[in-house]
Amino acid sequence: MTNSIKTVTVLGTGVLGSQIAFQTAFKDCTVTAYDVNDKVLEAARDRFEKLAETYANEVPGARDGAAEKALSRLTLTSDLAAAVAHADLVIEAIPEILDLKRNTYRKLGELAPDKTIFATNSSTLLPSDLKDATGRPEKFLALHFANRVWQFNTAEVMGTADTDPDVFARVVEFAKAIGMVPIELHKEKAGYVLNSLLVPLLNAAAELAAGGYADPSAVDTTWRIATGAPVGPFQIYDIIGLTTPYNIMASGDAEAQKLAAWLKENYIDKGKLGLATGETSPRGRGVSVSRRSG
Amino acid sequence: MTNSIKTVTVLGTGVLGSQIAFQTAFKDCTVTAYDVNDKVLEAARDRFEKLAETYANEVPGARDGAAEKALSRLTLTSDLAAAVAHADLVIEAIPEILDLKRNTYRKLGELAPDKTIFATNSSTLLPSDLKDATGRPEKFLALHFANRVWQFNTAEVMGTADTDPDVFARVVEFAKAIGMVPIELHKEKAGYVLNSLLVPLLNAAAELAAGGYADPSAVDTTWRIATGAPVGPFQIYDIIGLTTPYNIMASGDAEAQKLAAWLKENYIDKGKLGLATGETSPRGRGVSVSRRSG
Repeated sequence: MTNSIKTVTVLGTGVLGSQIAFQTAFKDCTVTAYDVNDKVLEAARDRFEKLAETYANEVPGARDGAAEKALSRLTLTSDLAAAVAHADLVIEAIPEILDLKRNTYRKLGELAPDKTIFATNSSTLLPSDLKDATGRPEKFLALHFANRVWQFNTAEVMGTADTDPDVFARVVEFAKAIGMVPIELHKEKAGYVLNSLLVPLLNAAAELAAGGYADPSAVDTTWRIATGAPVGPFQIYDIIGLTTPYNIMASGDAEAQKLAAWLKENYIDKGKLGLATGETSPRGRGVSVSRRSG
Repeated sequence: MTNSIKTVTVLGTGVLGSQIAFQTAFKDCTVTAYDVNDKVLEAARDRFEKLAETYANEVPGARDGAAEKALSRLTLTSDLAAAVAHADLVIEAIPEILDLKRNTYRKLGELAPDKTIFATNSSTLLPSDLKDATGRPEKFLALHFANRVWQFNTAEVMGTADTDPDVFARVVEFAKAIGMVPIELHKEKAGYVLNSLLVPLLNAAAELAAGGYADPSAVDTTWRIATGAPVGPFQIYDIIGLTTPYNIMASGDAEAQKLAAWLKENYIDKGKLGLATGETSPRGRGVSVSRRSG
């Protein structure tokens, strides 16, 4: 099966949305990046320029103007109807607010042609939370990217029970065509694959330190030596920032709340929030974690 | 603080016991390896010869006869009294059977001089389970190695509330002196640091596959790409073998038992047990996991 998806619209030009749009354009698709108004699009333009620089520096095959060329395949607009009029695929990467997403899908369902596939990049919502709002649940699924898509190139593909298997297969092919490694989920799972693995590891690490069993540096050293990984769990916390883990733990059970309190007292209250997310994340660090804003 | 421990006795010449003894001799200590009878010691002799070969091939500084020289610092005996008569430190790496260990510590406590520190390499028992049998709880703690000690060189150091802090510090220095990275635990914790981190990750991976969410290969791919680790969780299962994880899960709660049943049906019953442990484990694989037999 070859890729049948050539014209792509990305909704949302935040950290991840802009990366998805740029990567897709870099891999020869015609891309429209949509956001709500001109001011936001202005910021998006800067983001895309910076991404072109980053690609030129970091991505094989992106030198000698190739990254710049991606910009020429990228159109920015705040007109949703125009944005989706010709799309084979719309990738939604707007803020993680259920009502906002559902309203957007309602509009999308009316504006987009019948052929258009919708994919959500949501990290925290399941496609089932959104599918009825799309008006086309058979053409709807999740396609979940990781921050620094050019480096951490997993694309988790997760449908609902209503997703047409042919649509699923086409999105898998599209993911490959834009340089991603598709990770297929056969059923819906909160956290997809990556966060389903990562959260238990990070919790276990926090338990060791919060419980006074071992220092964070000892925990990281153990993990690096034993598994050969370039970073340990506390280095991962540092990279993703502590705010998201804190919020997840603080809304968890009693045990999780104890860990949240420990994170707050020992790190957050001392201003240690971890490396900022997004553009300020360090180059070449060996870990990717799905961002909360999808 | 410099290392004050020069004369070391290792009880048990199984996979890990023989590695600990060889590594300690390789790092210039005088080592006595004890096991129960001459037949077992015969097998141990083969193990040490093979370790000398492995070191010569794999360990920096072990060529040109250096690994062979370690053998000259290594004495084998089945006479427990003679084995421990001059020991600064006894490292116990006998099978994980509580009564066997307690009886051994009772004998040791009578036979060893007052100065001798006792350390257990047990993976599954806490030092508290053994300390009263030693007759010297202040000179007793856990010193826990990982399979392929020359490569995965963590040494987890874990005392009880009774362990003399000076003894703890001396064992930390000893671990450094024999080329290990000491991982200090401030309180007792089943699973130490490594297995406290690894078990939740392996369980989460099994849940993804057993629940039908994602294939093992997709789980491994995700982990490798996202964290930069050389191996994913199912590759770790493969390396450590499935028998130990199965036994742990089968004696767990209802959720764990479901995972155990899945492992059994899909792997163990089909004869897929993972790579055998011990000498047959592959060279250079990027992971270490504490073995059940300590």
